[in-house]
Amino acid sequence: MNGAQALIRTLVDSGVDTTFMNPGTSEMHYVAALDDVPDMRGILALFEGVATGAADGFARMAGRPAASLLHLGPGLGNGLANLHNARRAHTPLLNIVGDHATHHARYDAPLQSDIEAIASSLNGVIRASTTSGDVARDTARAVADAYGPPGQISTLILPADVCWDPCDGPAPAVAPRQPAAVDGNVISEIAAILRSSGESAAIMVGGTACMAGPAELAGRISASTGAKLLAETFPTRSQRGAGRVAVERLGYLAEFAQMQLDGLQHLILVEAASPVSFFAYPDKASELVPDGCTVHTLAVPGQNSTGALAALADLVAPDAEPVLTSASRPDRPTGELNAETLASAVGSILPEGAIVADEGNTTGLFVSGFTAGCPQHDWLCLTGGAIGYGMPVATGAAVAEPHRKVLNLQADGSAMYTFQALWTQVRENLDVTTVILNNSSYAVLNMELERVGAAGDGARARDMLDLTRPDLDFVSLARACGVEQVSRATTAEEFTTQLEAAFAVEGPAVVEAVLPPL
Amino acid sequence: MNGAQALIRTLVDSGVDTTFMNPGTSEMHYVAALDDVPDMRGILALFEGVATGAADGFARMAGRPAASLLHLGPGLGNGLANLHNARRAHTPLLNIVGDHATHHARYDAPLQSDIEAIASSLNGVIRASTTSGDVARDTARAVADAYGPPGQISTLILPADVCWDPCDGPAPAVAPRQPAAVDGNVISEIAAILRSSGESAAIMVGGTACMAGPAELAGRISASTGAKLLAETFPTRSQRGAGRVAVERLGYLAEFAQMQLDGLQHLILVEAASPVSFFAYPDKASELVPDGCTVHTLAVPGQNSTGALAALADLVAPDAEPVLTSASRPDRPTGELNAETLASAVGSILPEGAIVADEGNTTGLFVSGFTAGCPQHDWLCLTGGAIGYGMPVATGAAVAEPHRKVLNLQADGSAMYTFQALWTQVRENLDVTTVILNNSSYAVLNMELERVGAAGDGARARDMLDLTRPDLDFVSLARACGVEQVSRATTAEEFTTQLEAAFAVEGPAVVEAVLPPL
Repeated sequence: MNGAQALIRTLVDSGVDTTFMNPGTSEMHYVAALDDVPDMRGILALFEGVATGAADGFARMAGRPAASLLHLGPGLGNGLANLHNARRAHTPLLNIVGDHATHHARYDAPLQSDIEAIASSLNGVIRASTTSGDVARDTARAVADAYGPPGQISTLILPADVCWDPCDGPAPAVAPRQPAAVDGNVISEIAAILRSSGESAAIMVGGTACMAGPAELAGRISASTGAKLLAETFPTRSQRGAGRVAVERLGYLAEFAQMQLDGLQHLILVEAASPVSFFAYPDKASELVPDGCTVHTLAVPGQNSTGALAALADLVAPDAEPVLTSASRPDRPTGELNAETLASAVGSILPEGAIVADEGNTTGLFVSGFTAGCPQHDWLCLTGGAIGYGMPVATGAAVAEPHRKVLNLQADGSAMYTFQALWTQVRENLDVTTVILNNSSYAVLNMELERVGAAGDGARARDMLDLTRPDLDFVSLARACGVEQVSRATTAEEFTTQLEAAFAVEGPAVVEAVLPPL
Repeated sequence: MNGAQALIRTLVDSGVDTTFMNPGTSEMHYVAALDDVPDMRGILALFEGVATGAADGFARMAGRPAASLLHLGPGLGNGLANLHNARRAHTPLLNIVGDHATHHARYDAPLQSDIEAIASSLNGVIRASTTSGDVARDTARAVADAYGPPGQISTLILPADVCWDPCDGPAPAVAPRQPAAVDGNVISEIAAILRSSGESAAIMVGGTACMAGPAELAGRISASTGAKLLAETFPTRSQRGAGRVAVERLGYLAEFAQMQLDGLQHLILVEAASPVSFFAYPDKASELVPDGCTVHTLAVPGQNSTGALAALADLVAPDAEPVLTSASRPDRPTGELNAETLASAVGSILPEGAIVADEGNTTGLFVSGFTAGCPQHDWLCLTGGAIGYGMPVATGAAVAEPHRKVLNLQADGSAMYTFQALWTQVRENLDVTTVILNNSSYAVLNMELERVGAAGDGARARDMLDLTRPDLDFVSLARACGVEQVSRATTAEEFTTQLEAAFAVEGPAVVEAVLPPL
């Protein structure tokens, strides 16, 4: 048995059975070993950002890590943006980076670069296996590291000779650590605050606390104490829809978030960070917490926030019932296709159990509102802000949940970063419907250009945010990748009908929604 | 005047008049300032890897740096692979990475990451401007740093407030350093070696020594002394064709390179690295210099290699004439379209003054051979080995040389990394003809899978190197990006005719060449 075979067997024994990969020469033994360990599924991506984003989407839905397999420093670079997103999402992810053979490193061959320096930007754990005798043990530990908690990027640097040299065999799985319990005094203190009459409070959930169970506990606390219930701006995964507790997400725009937080005296964080502006703006505050508001932390990521919420609910809301969302759908829209009618269309037909990978940017917020009362579904957000996340995450989510419908709301500019994911969706026949929100511009930047107070409204500046000259043709793009169910909608009726047709296909589909330019 | 305006004016005063960009919110003041400094040309890319690769291609042809403008750590990650290639090519490149405002960094907003850690992998110079009062001076120095010599990646981290805060104005240009002269004793010693009769020697040129002038000097030395004339495997830029000195490139495959070096007693390096295998293979040597061969260095990158070659030629070849390549073209091919007939077709019609951006990988070598006697042209190689270089570099080369025809030989797998370059080619009406070499596989990896001695020839391993399931449709891909002159060729005759039609267009064109699967 060689190192690669032992590594992959160890992965499978540790519960990692999927590798999203874009391999090169230094990874050929890993690739060859796929035939020796049939329980490992290898999924090819045409670009590394697809592989890392898919590993993120997989873990968000499966609750366990996938592996990504990348080719040296440049491959890690190509995968870095979606690893950044996964880091911010606290996704458990095993990031395997192939490297030159240990004895080859000293020759500074063309592809040599400082992999550790690049990986260090991910603030996770980095292991470099240096002998085939160590690689299985390193792998088992790296998987446990990925779990955290909180989940993190566990990078395993894998020299080629460590893969091809012989070794004794796989290593036993290492049990992941359990989330740490929250101190009872913290819970009591927060209970006292929530009980104090006349004080205005909000509970803001993030991370795993956005799942249905903890959100329902938070909903009980909210119902009993009158505390407002908020979620961080871009949760990793929320569970929502009819019969679940509705949690209002903090706005992306600082001005909007400040309105939501206005007048609060206490803000209680549950795996959420204290609210700050996504970007800085001249003469505007970065911190969004209002003056006079005290921030309290019930749990940080990695702590048992569900347990803490349960204990808190026992103290302040023993008999309270949460307010649950009523079932409701918007009517099928008619007329112009715009952000609102598109959102109505989605809300009118979103299938039960859908997984929404939301990179709708300027358009996505409407859809969130118009689907609040739909049958229960999951919602995945761009937690880290690095665009090009939606199509890969949708891909990985569909691998993890093959019997659920994945809807990818995809802004046009962002779609051009990692559209290669469509090819993987076709290859693996993944049940993903991609809606391209084509408004012919980096709309969010047109807005930001004004918000940052940039002096000019000059033609040359505007031109840098414009996606016409030439128009992008997403129907052709999808066909280039082998997608057969492809259409373009220019009215609300067309869009609704085409989205229905896309959902009816058990496999990838693309609907290009032509929206008014902003 | 704000920091961004001062920065851009300083760039223009320093000879940097082109920015390839994929900006985000933190770069909006740079974008806005384009309207204030009309001498700066902003060129939009849909993906950062296009921007950095285009800056590489621009500088290879223009001999002076362009700027790339990227959005925080994730943008730098997306641009990193082509920055790696530029680093290996010793390309002067000013890599501007926008960052959060200095006062915003402490809040760890979603897009915050360790930009310096990522940039440190590029082994260049990193500057972080922290006040608008410093940014102009930092910029002038950063441009000078980019020049080296040798050329390098000069990264300027640019916080948003440094751009929007007021400042006194631009800074004067800083003169780049000159290449260091080679010590006369080194030249004399190498002259003595070359004069010693009966010793077998080779001169291997790399870097700037592959340009026509120094190559001709090396050719005189070769003609006079009998030393073999070689070039490094993937030169940054070679000048070749009829009437120029032919320089044989060292083979990519170690076995082939070893044949070329076999029997040598002296290997004289001129800006080239001592030959090593691109990758390591089990039981094969990484160093390719044969036993008994002594390696001598005439000049390293950054030294005045042309001056050293001139001095050496004065010593050993005062009256020698180099052997110049005769004009010759292959006949127009007929029959099956394969690597050889494709190469013949290119050789039969390659325009004078063409710039070839070669990412042909397994197919490209044939074209190099069949174009050796064509009218004079330039040839750009994938020096750093990170795929996805060809389309961006062709884009930048066409910006630098608008009156020359650019031919991009582009392997299919590599094309899928940075194909977004086609959109920029259309937008800027760049005269680039892209030939997609579609053999439906990562052909080089099929070869490497065997060369690394990977155990299996299993179906699951082969599947990871296969680009069918589904077939990629490059005609649709080009149309998606707005390219109008698009065709697909399946025979040698079709390909030749279509390539002619593509060359006849003054603007972007794409020919998909359907080649036999390997």
